[in-house]
Amino acid sequence: MAIIPSTLGEFGRIERFFRPLTRNFPGALELSDDAAVVSVPTGQELVVTTDAIVAGVHFLASDPARDIARKALRVNLSDLAAKGAHPLAYTLTLATGRELDDSWVEAFAAGLADDQLQYGIALAGGDSVSTAGPIWASITAFGLAEAGRMVRRSGARPGDVVLVTGTIGDAALGLAVAQGRLAVEDADKVTLLDRYRLPQPRTHLARAIAEYANAAIDISDGLAADFGHLCRASGASGSIAVPNIPLSSAARNVLAADGTRMSDILTGGDDYEVLLTASAQSASALQMAAAARGIALTEVGSITSAENTNSAGQTTFIDGAGRKMTIDRTGWTHS
Amino acid sequence: MAIIPSTLGEFGRIERFFRPLTRNFPGALELSDDAAVVSVPTGQELVVTTDAIVAGVHFLASDPARDIARKALRVNLSDLAAKGAHPLAYTLTLATGRELDDSWVEAFAAGLADDQLQYGIALAGGDSVSTAGPIWASITAFGLAEAGRMVRRSGARPGDVVLVTGTIGDAALGLAVAQGRLAVEDADKVTLLDRYRLPQPRTHLARAIAEYANAAIDISDGLAADFGHLCRASGASGSIAVPNIPLSSAARNVLAADGTRMSDILTGGDDYEVLLTASAQSASALQMAAAARGIALTEVGSITSAENTNSAGQTTFIDGAGRKMTIDRTGWTHS
Repeated sequence: MAIIPSTLGEFGRIERFFRPLTRNFPGALELSDDAAVVSVPTGQELVVTTDAIVAGVHFLASDPARDIARKALRVNLSDLAAKGAHPLAYTLTLATGRELDDSWVEAFAAGLADDQLQYGIALAGGDSVSTAGPIWASITAFGLAEAGRMVRRSGARPGDVVLVTGTIGDAALGLAVAQGRLAVEDADKVTLLDRYRLPQPRTHLARAIAEYANAAIDISDGLAADFGHLCRASGASGSIAVPNIPLSSAARNVLAADGTRMSDILTGGDDYEVLLTASAQSASALQMAAAARGIALTEVGSITSAENTNSAGQTTFIDGAGRKMTIDRTGWTHS
Repeated sequence: MAIIPSTLGEFGRIERFFRPLTRNFPGALELSDDAAVVSVPTGQELVVTTDAIVAGVHFLASDPARDIARKALRVNLSDLAAKGAHPLAYTLTLATGRELDDSWVEAFAAGLADDQLQYGIALAGGDSVSTAGPIWASITAFGLAEAGRMVRRSGARPGDVVLVTGTIGDAALGLAVAQGRLAVEDADKVTLLDRYRLPQPRTHLARAIAEYANAAIDISDGLAADFGHLCRASGASGSIAVPNIPLSSAARNVLAADGTRMSDILTGGDDYEVLLTASAQSASALQMAAAARGIALTEVGSITSAENTNSAGQTTFIDGAGRKMTIDRTGWTHS
């Protein structure tokens, strides 16, 4: 790739492309100081999350700059949503190489601008560095929650219902398609690749999660692993009815052709949906809130008491015939 | 370099090496949740800064892991100090390759632990990613300041005295030594390389800066550039008496052998000292506070009114004979 020197330089890029992203956040001081100021209203606290994406691992360097920017922001917004936090601001460190010209940076900033508008967040500050290696972006995002009310992984209670937003497994199948490990119809290919490329953070459900959920986690390591994290943190056990897991029609088509793909769906990761638990009554309120916002929210399981300390975090997956399933790297089997 | 697989894995490394770094910050939730909680006392606000360091640009991959960690943290602590903010917590994203074994990560964490103790800050959260390229670390640091009282670049007033902490230019000369562009005596070599490798954030002067300074900036782009940033942000002009700039004996030795090295000293960057302005009376109070903490604080210049809009940000450097000096890439001359 040709090396096209920046005609703007670092300061020019900041002024032209990034300063406008601070417009709704006066504490950014227009990126003209060493630091930003973040005010937290009395009675609230800041929810802070940080996630980085690296070319070749989380995206391809050849992906559109606009999509890379949005993925970097959205994986963080997804964490805030799962914690029931209202997005406030973020800092960005962007590492680019000399092969990226000003128009690439302009498109990257345009992606951020679009998502800032969609999710109600603003740039507070940042750093730019150059790298001879893969490009990367690291974001630290700030949200607001009522003091002491951030929804944790550890709040699940026996008797809670387990719910998930959206559909599960599409991103993992999309990655398999991208890597040539899975062949699907063209229409499904578009759907699955899109789901891998661009998470849909459930920001608009954050308020209801804060109000009604006992526990929640952003599904990034895969439904099975993250459900385990949540149950372990809560000192509880849990079960999920596999037939109830919400699947896209593309994922259903994949499963119809090869049932062993259920393993990818349950363990593949990168869903960026929210797994949450709530009392049955609160679950109804959550369902209503989700429906009002056009977000699918599906009951998939329940939380039970851990029989003993060793079984805290134990999760069970049940098939349509009520049999326990065991999942490992080679697939899933009835145990 | 041989590839030594981690025996601990990502979760093991977090649990063993990074979780202990959160001990003094309950809001980190022991790194066991999607996000951290940061509480800001009523009447205060959060000062947020973010800086990344990349192998081959800001440090050498062969540098001790302990020093890499400390540099990553200290460049951020330096920003907080310049803003008069009290360190609170930080998030870390660390990108490593497969050639780094668990003992490297252990040493990296040990460097953070040492500096956490020295500067009174704690780990709040983080992310770890793998990269096939140069390793890097990105830190976002949080400090506390009285609401509305963060010391900005823009607060300098005509009549203010200009002061700098420590000594100027050592890091730039250290880089020249490291790159083989400058030969010095062995003792000076150690001094200059140390100053390049490991900044000394002026955290212990932060409280006095918050109380007495009108404006301040962390000197990272070089004294000349950062003085220009401060004057421009303040809509003022400023002058610095070059003979008053505090120099280490190592830097004096370099200058004695080659006077043109003054250019490196004034423009080289990476000092991570604080440049600040204050009224004459407040400057005395600052001097006393600095002396009590064993930090050198030297008066080097003054702030004047900008004659017109175009001259805001204009800075003048005066030599020992009272002549204006002009600095460019090829050195400095009397104009």
